[in-house]
Amino acid sequence: MTNPAEIEAAAARIQGHVQRTPVMTSTALVPGTDVDLKLEHLQHTGSFKARGAFNSLLSSQVPDAGLVAASGGNHGAAVAFAANALGHKAQVYVPEMAGPAKIALIERCGAALTVVPGEYVNALEAARDYEARTGAQQIHAYDAPATVAGQGTMMREWEEQGLAADTVLIAVGGGGLIAGALAWLQGRRKVVAVEPETSCALHAALRAGAPVDVSVSGVAANALGARKIGQICFDLAVSQEAASVLVSDKAILTAQTLLWQSHRLLVEPAGATALAALLSGAYTPAPGERVAVLLCGGNVAPDPLS
Amino acid sequence: MTNPAEIEAAAARIQGHVQRTPVMTSTALVPGTDVDLKLEHLQHTGSFKARGAFNSLLSSQVPDAGLVAASGGNHGAAVAFAANALGHKAQVYVPEMAGPAKIALIERCGAALTVVPGEYVNALEAARDYEARTGAQQIHAYDAPATVAGQGTMMREWEEQGLAADTVLIAVGGGGLIAGALAWLQGRRKVVAVEPETSCALHAALRAGAPVDVSVSGVAANALGARKIGQICFDLAVSQEAASVLVSDKAILTAQTLLWQSHRLLVEPAGATALAALLSGAYTPAPGERVAVLLCGGNVAPDPLS
Repeated sequence: MTNPAEIEAAAARIQGHVQRTPVMTSTALVPGTDVDLKLEHLQHTGSFKARGAFNSLLSSQVPDAGLVAASGGNHGAAVAFAANALGHKAQVYVPEMAGPAKIALIERCGAALTVVPGEYVNALEAARDYEARTGAQQIHAYDAPATVAGQGTMMREWEEQGLAADTVLIAVGGGGLIAGALAWLQGRRKVVAVEPETSCALHAALRAGAPVDVSVSGVAANALGARKIGQICFDLAVSQEAASVLVSDKAILTAQTLLWQSHRLLVEPAGATALAALLSGAYTPAPGERVAVLLCGGNVAPDPLS
Repeated sequence: MTNPAEIEAAAARIQGHVQRTPVMTSTALVPGTDVDLKLEHLQHTGSFKARGAFNSLLSSQVPDAGLVAASGGNHGAAVAFAANALGHKAQVYVPEMAGPAKIALIERCGAALTVVPGEYVNALEAARDYEARTGAQQIHAYDAPATVAGQGTMMREWEEQGLAADTVLIAVGGGGLIAGALAWLQGRRKVVAVEPETSCALHAALRAGAPVDVSVSGVAANALGARKIGQICFDLAVSQEAASVLVSDKAILTAQTLLWQSHRLLVEPAGATALAALLSGAYTPAPGERVAVLLCGGNVAPDPLS
């Protein structure tokens, strides 16, 4: 299981390749209450995924055939960006639901791109086929130790920046980010996993006692729509006793609008999902409990400047 | 002339009313170079203007007739927000060029709003007429000591956050923000005033030796389109030897796109104007000179979530 030493090593490895993202304490989102935010959506390629991608590439011997990834969009963009920065070629498979904004982003990052009909899992099959055919290295979006250790550097950085909160709310798709946070924190702070009601692989797994297949849909599906939670995440969520809550698509869109109207923070629905738990009451802090919310992705569609 | 003690007093006065805005060091905007950013566009109502508005209201006895302001949009929103927070009524006059996004923002902040045909100066005339008629208190957008002292708290905060740069680039409209920065810094760092070629009241004043009328147009006109630079700003720009450079509308839009594509920072054209000077070469740092760029406004049109 990923541990703090691996995350320390990842942080040293990726330093200079990823953006140190800013933090702020909002007094406007919940009037009269301090809410700590980390603006991880300002990361290279607009999500935390750059951390795991750089750590994966820098901790392995990339073959001449290059890299392959399957992605709802954000992981693919991160792999494309990291590959380009480090001089490797990359092939990315995305499902149609990735949408034109994320597809354009991946192309801007210089990767070869194939759009696959269906969901994330169909893109993953295509990527595995390419891997078998060419010898390219597969970079898994969430369920691989190097990916999780890379994502864990976000939580390490946040603590280094003086995080005050008792409790951290994090949106969950396949679970790479929250797994990294749980592995780093080792129970020092409470971690709340927030998932859309329409894409809740971790919640379903915790109820079932093991990762199970779920159907995925809704406004955040292209970022959070993993059909099955990663085993690494599941094991850490159980051992570290992560809380698990669900939010509606409507609550996600309300949170997205509030972030824009209160702070000119423009995030994609997945990026507003953790905040939605606080605003909707899906997670209610105890009196005096200070809460932090991670903003994990900013790749909205349509592109606001197009 | 505004001095550091007045800015210290303003900072104490407005603390808790304004947002402490985050800072970051970008390595992506100018590849291989650290550029310090302050994300002041994440301030309440999407621009630094909230600082001057709160300081003005909190340092005076507001009459029962309330407040009146003329504004290209951002100052009006800030006055409306501060008035609402402090329990005063507010009347805001904006020129048509403010545009629907800023007009909607002012209305959301709870002010009475009148849209005036023409430019900022026409809105200012209407506001002066209302002031004379009703006894409402006029909050000037930039050329008043309390406004300048309030805006100066931005630079004070940035230094408190550990600003490393030798040189700070700031966009200039009427000059309230840069005046506050110059008054705070007292020559400790170089300050570069950046204006659009199409709205350059400070540049024209420095050439003429006194504030003069200029025509205003272009992509940033509703935020930077002051017809004449404020006297407070002019005096400080001369005494503190601010540099003055101009950028094209095209350079502004290029900088705006780069901020979005590199960092998911969505700013209005005025908010990208300072960066445009660095990217276009209008300002070229000396070898080893570290540069900081202030992002001053985020009220883009159209609203990206509408």
